[in-house]
Parts: sequence; structure tokens; C-alpha cells
Amino acid sequence: MSEWMDALSLTKPVIQAPMAGGLVTPRLAAAVSNEGALGSLASGYVSPPALEKQLIEMKDLTDRSFQVNLFVPEERQMPEEELIEQWKARIPRAKDAKPFSDLKEEWNDFEEKADLLIRYGVKACSFTFGLPPEETAEKLKKNGCFLFGTATTPEEAKAFEERGMDAVILQGIEAGGHRGSFLPVKGEPALGLMALIPQAKDALNIPVIAAGGIFDRRGVQAARCLGADGVQVGTPFLLCEESSASPAYQKAIAESKGADTRLTTLFSGKQARGIVNQFMKTYEADEGNTLPYPLHNTLTKPMRGHAAQSGDAEYMSLWAGQSAAKLEGPTDVKAVLDRLCRS
Amino acid sequence: MSEWMDALSLTKPVIQAPMAGGLVTPRLAAAVSNEGALGSLASGYVSPPALEKQLIEMKDLTDRSFQVNLFVPEERQMPEEELIEQWKARIPRAKDAKPFSDLKEEWNDFEEKADLLIRYGVKACSFTFGLPPEETAEKLKKNGCFLFGTATTPEEAKAFEERGMDAVILQGIEAGGHRGSFLPVKGEPALGLMALIPQAKDALNIPVIAAGGIFDRRGVQAARCLGADGVQVGTPFLLCEESSASPAYQKAIAESKGADTRLTTLFSGKQARGIVNQFMKTYEADEGNTLPYPLHNTLTKPMRGHAAQSGDAEYMSLWAGQSAAKLEGPTDVKAVLDRLCRS
Repeated sequence: MSEWMDALSLTKPVIQAPMAGGLVTPRLAAAVSNEGALGSLASGYVSPPALEKQLIEMKDLTDRSFQVNLFVPEERQMPEEELIEQWKARIPRAKDAKPFSDLKEEWNDFEEKADLLIRYGVKACSFTFGLPPEETAEKLKKNGCFLFGTATTPEEAKAFEERGMDAVILQGIEAGGHRGSFLPVKGEPALGLMALIPQAKDALNIPVIAAGGIFDRRGVQAARCLGADGVQVGTPFLLCEESSASPAYQKAIAESKGADTRLTTLFSGKQARGIVNQFMKTYEADEGNTLPYPLHNTLTKPMRGHAAQSGDAEYMSLWAGQSAAKLEGPTDVKAVLDRLCRS
Repeated sequence: MSEWMDALSLTKPVIQAPMAGGLVTPRLAAAVSNEGALGSLASGYVSPPALEKQLIEMKDLTDRSFQVNLFVPEERQMPEEELIEQWKARIPRAKDAKPFSDLKEEWNDFEEKADLLIRYGVKACSFTFGLPPEETAEKLKKNGCFLFGTATTPEEAKAFEERGMDAVILQGIEAGGHRGSFLPVKGEPALGLMALIPQAKDALNIPVIAAGGIFDRRGVQAARCLGADGVQVGTPFLLCEESSASPAYQKAIAESKGADTRLTTLFSGKQARGIVNQFMKTYEADEGNTLPYPLHNTLTKPMRGHAAQSGDAEYMSLWAGQSAAKLEGPTDVKAVLDRLCRS
């Protein structure tokens, strides 16, 4: 577990997952980096000016490497107006949602964020939901940025390697939050790490990082046995005092049991793993009928924001991985990392 | 990885999965036992007299321990006659299906099989689809039979321990074939081994065996890191010359890629993992609308049997785990075990 760690001057083979939606603040990411692991900012749903503000804050808080995650915009067809209106009528507070942004605007933001990373000398960048354009990848690499792709199948991992990534994060089905899947498959892009890591490792020549359900040394060691060069960890950091996850969300994680999570498209239009709550139960029959991502996400945002503020866990997205049941809070970044690696 | 192995005089911490539906013959199971791992017969879909015949054959082929798997009959409500008639009309060859057996008959068979195990001094027995009645478990244990339960969540594992099992097989989402789930959950009983093993290990005081996607030493070592006391392996044995899987089935496994499998209820009425084929594609929209297990299984049996005989992989169940892509054939039992453990 060393070459990619050397490149980023890490002392721990751990990446803090870039959990989008306001869950990760510079305070959390910097605390992770200052402990010798790789802290991550999430630029998804963040405007370029807001990202710049976070980068400035981050530079104040740490001299060590950190990464920024970029969502790669995707081709999509606009749904029928009727379906949009139906969902607007059904989702609580959807009338307060912002107008949908178009794909061109998303791509403009994407390139603007990549340029910000270069301007602020960010040492690492990860991509989710697809391959970055070759020119963007080249531009970032030329400026000393280490590039990670996020893959859910061996084929996606290979595609990232061919696009010039320095390493690939393998997202097992155990992982909380959004699935990074972007290539069509015959079956389901839903591999457990026990199957995904060896298959990707054997197919690739670059380091692979395992993500999903890892919370203690056992998982780190198991990932290493399977061929992983490091791990990415998300949910455990949500219970840290440095996290900005709402108390109701933290409570839902801490009180969850073994099989309380499932994949759902109901919050965003894209599959993501979270603890089942009332919103997921109410609309369960509509799982296959949501608006495409990120349109559905835009419509549920006012509801989720209000729920987070009012402490109502039944109407926010409770993203969590399959090991949520093993987590307890409150904790802090140092304790989470100590549970993963000897310090 | 030793107490349970000592109890069964094993030299390898490996169980050959008891794959039902005629895939495992005494020849395969005995070859596994003779190599120091635990060979398994599947009694599901096998009448008591046919099981007795296999037990006699088995005793001829090996002096070592082997196990027999028993399906535990489940409560069920008969579906509407209309739904039954619809499926009879839609599933190829369903008109040749045998009449549905009732639950009482299934329980009679179950107890008769348990008695056969005692009569033939079978050293181990595993249960799938639920907990055995306390009296059955006690009777088998009193006669020196080592008992395994099959669990898909930490809670199911705990329930098996409380029912007096000697060990629990943890079926990860990576596993091929039927899911052993039997307790209701809030989310999905679909945990990857990376999350399932540590949660179950921490909750139980009996050995846990990891099943799903394990095909080489890396998987065995990873399972051990996570807390497993052994592994159960299925799909790799299907490519053995000792297996009775049809050539078309073996070819489908050998040619499969990383994400070619998915869970389906279309063959049996119960979720099972297999390589996607034409039958699964044709009826995909009906996944949630099948008859309850095992009624649906009964209706698809003539179609599956005909497909196997005529070498048509598109209409048989191609049960396979998520590591099928890493398998090549033809191989044999010794080679499969050598890939898993140093001999």
C-alpha cells in the first residue's frame, strides 16, 4: 500500500469519502489530512465560488494533501412534462425547488471547478458518475494533480485506467450513498468487495482502493488480502464531532441494525444506499419511475433541507453503508482512523 | 479456523456449497471430502428414497465427513388461481409441470430426510430458508450430527445460534443461487461479506463460515481477516469434471464477465443469483409478481430440464456467484481446492 501513498505523502492508506450534500466541511477533511490520511472535499451540488471559498479555508487548515471530488455530468433525456408535474405535486416542498439546470451549465461548472483545483494547487482529484474528458484529465495531471476514478465494476475500473487515472476507487455494494456506476452491464453493477477487488486488481496495472462497509482493521486487512492498495471510508466519519451531519442523521446511523439500509432512487433519481425511512417507504412503488438524476435531487432538496433543520430523520436522505450498525457516536477523526490503522 | 474442522476431521477450512437441482452428485461431494474439505449433498427437490440412494452411494465413495443440506419448509399463502393460470400459460412447458405439493407433504419429507441422516450416520447437516424445529435439531445433534444454519443477516445468524446450531454459514450478496433469507428486515437482506462477516462474528459465539464470491486464496485470507472460521464455495465446483452441471451452463460461467449476474425471482419465486439470460430478460417486468416459492419453481422445472438437455443456456437457471468471471474450465475438485488453500 505505498506508491500512491508516497505520491500524496500519506502515512495511512485511508481516504475519507467525499460525501456530497454538505456532509463534509473543510474542518473534517483537514482533520483527516492532518492525521496522515487523505481528506476529501465534495464539489457536487457546490457552486464554483462556494468551492473556492472551501479551498481557501482548507489551505488555512492543513498543509497536507487533500482531494476534491468532481461529479462528471452525464448525457440525459428530459422526462415528459407530465411526470415532472406529477413529482412536483407529490414531493413535499417541491414547489420551493430551484429550476432545473441544463447539461451545458453543468459542464461549465465542471471545467470551472477543475480550473480552481489547478489554481489552488490541489494535490488530488476524484471523479464520480463517469470518465472525465481526456483534456481535463491531462490538464489536471500536468499540474501535479493525482487522479482517482470511481468504479463499480471491473470494466469501469479498466475504462478509468485507460483514461489516464493514477488509481481507481472500487465501490462495493456495501458502500453508502450514491452508486458511481456509468457503464451498461448485462446483470447488475452491484458487486460485493469480495468479488470486485480481485477482479479489478487482476485487470489493472494501477493501484485500487476499496470502498464499502470498511470500519475497522479487519476490513483494511481483508481489503489488502484481496489486492487493494488502500481503503476509502465514509459513514464512520459522519459520527465525528468534526462532521456537519445533522444530529438526527447521526442518531439514525448510531441506532441502525444490520440490514436497515437499501438502495433507493427516490431522493435523487440515481441509486444510493441509505437507512430506510418514511419517505422511502411511502414512495417505494415508484422506485423505477423517478426523474433522471439530478432533476429528482433538485425536487427533493427543499424537503431534505427542512427535515435536516427540524431534526426529522424520516424525510432526509440517511446515506449509510452496510456496516452502519457497527458505528457509535459521538467520536472524532482521530478515533475513526485509530480504529482503521495502528497509529 | 480449527474447532469446527476438528469436529468434522477436516484438513481444509472449505465447505463445498450444497447446490440443489441435480448439480451435485455423490461423485463430486465425495471427491471434495476425500481432499479434506467438506463435501455436501443437496436434498432440496430430492425425494427421501432418492436421497437414501445418494447416501448409500456416498458411503461407498468416502469414509470422511460430508454434510447434507435440508430446505426448511416455509409458511405460505396460496396465490390467486388467476395468477397461477396466467403463469401456467406464459412459462414454456409449464403444462408438463407436476401438481403443487402442499406444505404438510414438505414437512413430512423434511422429517423423513432428517431421520435418514441419522440412520446413515451423516456427520453434518445444514439448513436453508429458515430455522429447523427445536426437536429436529436436538434429535440430529444427539446422534452426533454437526449443525450449520444459513444466514444472510447478523440477526438470522443469531437466531440460528439460539436454535442450537454448531456453526453458521454467512451468505454474502456475492453468492450464487438462492438467498437463504428468512427474517423480515427494514432494508434489504443483501449484505456484502465485507459488512456481514464482522457484524455476525461480533454477535455470535459459534464459528462463522463465509460464502459468496470466494474462489482463491485471497478470498479465504480476507474472510479470515474479517473473522470467518472457514469458507463455503459453490460456483467454482460447477466447472469440475466431477460436476453434473450441463456443458451449456459450464460454458456460460466460463464466458461470463464481471457484472453479468443479478438476483432474480423468475425461476423459482425466491431471489437467487444467476447469469442473465433470455428468460430473465423476457420476464424482467414480472420480477415482483411471481408465484411464491417453491410453486414457481415447479412451473419452470420442465422448461429448465428441457433446456439443460438440449444445451440451451437461455432457458435454464444459470446460478452463479459474482466471481464467475474469474473461473475457467474444465477443472477438477483438487485444482479448485488447491486454488483456495495450500495443499
